[in-house]
Amino acid sequence: MKNQKHRENQTIYFKNKPVIIGNYTIVGPKEGEGPFSDYFDYIMKKDDFGEKTYEMAERKMIEHAVIGAINSAKLTPNQIDMFLAGDLLNQIISSSYAARQFDMTYIGVFGACSTMAESLALGATFVDAGHFNNVACATVSHFSTAERQFRYPLELGNQRPPTAQWTVTGSGCTILSNSGIGPRVTMATFGKVSDYGVCDVNNMGAAMAPAAMNTLIAHFKDTKTTPEDYDLIVTGDLGKLGVEILIDLMEENGFKLGINYCDCGQIIYDRSQSVLMGGSGCGCSASILNSYILQKMREGVYNKVLFVATGALLSTLSCQQGDSIPGIAHAVVIENEVK
Amino acid sequence: MKNQKHRENQTIYFKNKPVIIGNYTIVGPKEGEGPFSDYFDYIMKKDDFGEKTYEMAERKMIEHAVIGAINSAKLTPNQIDMFLAGDLLNQIISSSYAARQFDMTYIGVFGACSTMAESLALGATFVDAGHFNNVACATVSHFSTAERQFRYPLELGNQRPPTAQWTVTGSGCTILSNSGIGPRVTMATFGKVSDYGVCDVNNMGAAMAPAAMNTLIAHFKDTKTTPEDYDLIVTGDLGKLGVEILIDLMEENGFKLGINYCDCGQIIYDRSQSVLMGGSGCGCSASILNSYILQKMREGVYNKVLFVATGALLSTLSCQQGDSIPGIAHAVVIENEVK
Repeated sequence: MKNQKHRENQTIYFKNKPVIIGNYTIVGPKEGEGPFSDYFDYIMKKDDFGEKTYEMAERKMIEHAVIGAINSAKLTPNQIDMFLAGDLLNQIISSSYAARQFDMTYIGVFGACSTMAESLALGATFVDAGHFNNVACATVSHFSTAERQFRYPLELGNQRPPTAQWTVTGSGCTILSNSGIGPRVTMATFGKVSDYGVCDVNNMGAAMAPAAMNTLIAHFKDTKTTPEDYDLIVTGDLGKLGVEILIDLMEENGFKLGINYCDCGQIIYDRSQSVLMGGSGCGCSASILNSYILQKMREGVYNKVLFVATGALLSTLSCQQGDSIPGIAHAVVIENEVK
Repeated sequence: MKNQKHRENQTIYFKNKPVIIGNYTIVGPKEGEGPFSDYFDYIMKKDDFGEKTYEMAERKMIEHAVIGAINSAKLTPNQIDMFLAGDLLNQIISSSYAARQFDMTYIGVFGACSTMAESLALGATFVDAGHFNNVACATVSHFSTAERQFRYPLELGNQRPPTAQWTVTGSGCTILSNSGIGPRVTMATFGKVSDYGVCDVNNMGAAMAPAAMNTLIAHFKDTKTTPEDYDLIVTGDLGKLGVEILIDLMEENGFKLGINYCDCGQIIYDRSQSVLMGGSGCGCSASILNSYILQKMREGVYNKVLFVATGALLSTLSCQQGDSIPGIAHAVVIENEVK
């Protein structure tokens, strides 16, 4: 580890600091029973959201989140110049089919569960450069679609090993603008792919923790900050085991993650909800960011947040062919303007 | 069609005009037997590229293309700040696993066969804004991996309907830089998702042609140019039927695509190669751009090229659930500096 090179240019700075003028979160019934139920904008009564298939429900969720976020920004859809989104399904069909509904240019991204940070970082780049005035950044995941695509048929009722996480049924959307009032995206640190050889698809936290470490260290070095400089450092969905691994890895590298650090996967469900290591899926960090975190930033509880979404870049086929699981983490810094 | 709205802001302009300082193309044996064999940098002797699986061969191809492009730019890998890539495989494993090999920040994108234009447009945005000095934009596709993922087991030896296209085994990589000599990326027009209700997975050209039309019209209107203003207008992989549809659609809208228009899917194979409507796959336009087109630009044969890569955003599951095929097209303008 000691000789690992961290180039000083993983972080980019936004001169014009794009403003978060709107955000929205929609979640499933199980997420609605968790500790953040009061913060979510919409809790679905049923997992199928009135659709014939779970995939169509997932698609409807991201459409709902985008419209909700645009409304919360007091804009109309035709004022949004670009839609940046991705999801976990093969060929990111939830995002791409949702994009059919919108008269906006569309950039499809794939970063697995790092998608919320990836789309925010790209969206902020476009707004900051003056190319677009308003962009919508979104992602979605659904327990039932992820389970049957990546793991087992739902009907099988398979047991889950203790290191497993529960894919969050949730979608979050953030509207970034070149003007307005609200928290601002001030910088982004792009991640590199890290692979420490973890092959257990039921232990995503372990696969993603090294990527989170690399991006965090790059961020602190690039920006000459320390963990104490943030009111909140929040990772995406490492889950309880992944969090322990990350804290250890950071400590080995001389960075102490203290009580200002938490992980969305660790906190999104209650201990009583039988989710083992916690939540996962790109909707996990998207749901917490676009509800609780941004609300607390608007209330002034948090003024400087480091949001680090982590993704495991595997496919069922890569695992079947014996490959280990590469991870990636992208980070964005969201700050309130200092008065 | 008449009342279709085309917002005037799908096109962004690059003030600093990122330079293409390197490019590389690797293709399979079949592509190597086609009309562009003299232009490709590397022609594989066998489809498996010495690997155990076709997926691993595909991954090795994009790694090879990236290293080749970096060498052609006379840079070393550690001078590349960001790697932007995507492919057709579920969870874009070819790109993400290739990214493990490189000490570069990584942005995974998904635009199906529009990926080469998408990654170029994003890469140019980062270089133009001064965030990064050198970025690598790449994509790959492989006949055998696409065939078995999207269609039938190779062993089945299925017949192909006359509207079918042949997925190109090829990978292309472009190095963009903030300095140097070469053709420059001067603008990009981002596409919106278009869906005209085509459900036939063996007729991708028809599914993608409306998207190509929408992006072309948006581009011409945004930039107040006409097809005659370009030495070459090249679409990605509409194939022979898709080309006919696009020419018709454009004519209905008052734009005449003349002899300066061609389609990579239409030209990449020889008529004798039994590929029906022509080539497809994200490696198709990437291979032609990063070999023939850029070489002819460097020779001054072409000085202003409009490169429009088109993607069909379906998955096997979306088709099985009865959905039609949404298309998207992103365009970039590549120009030689006027002396």
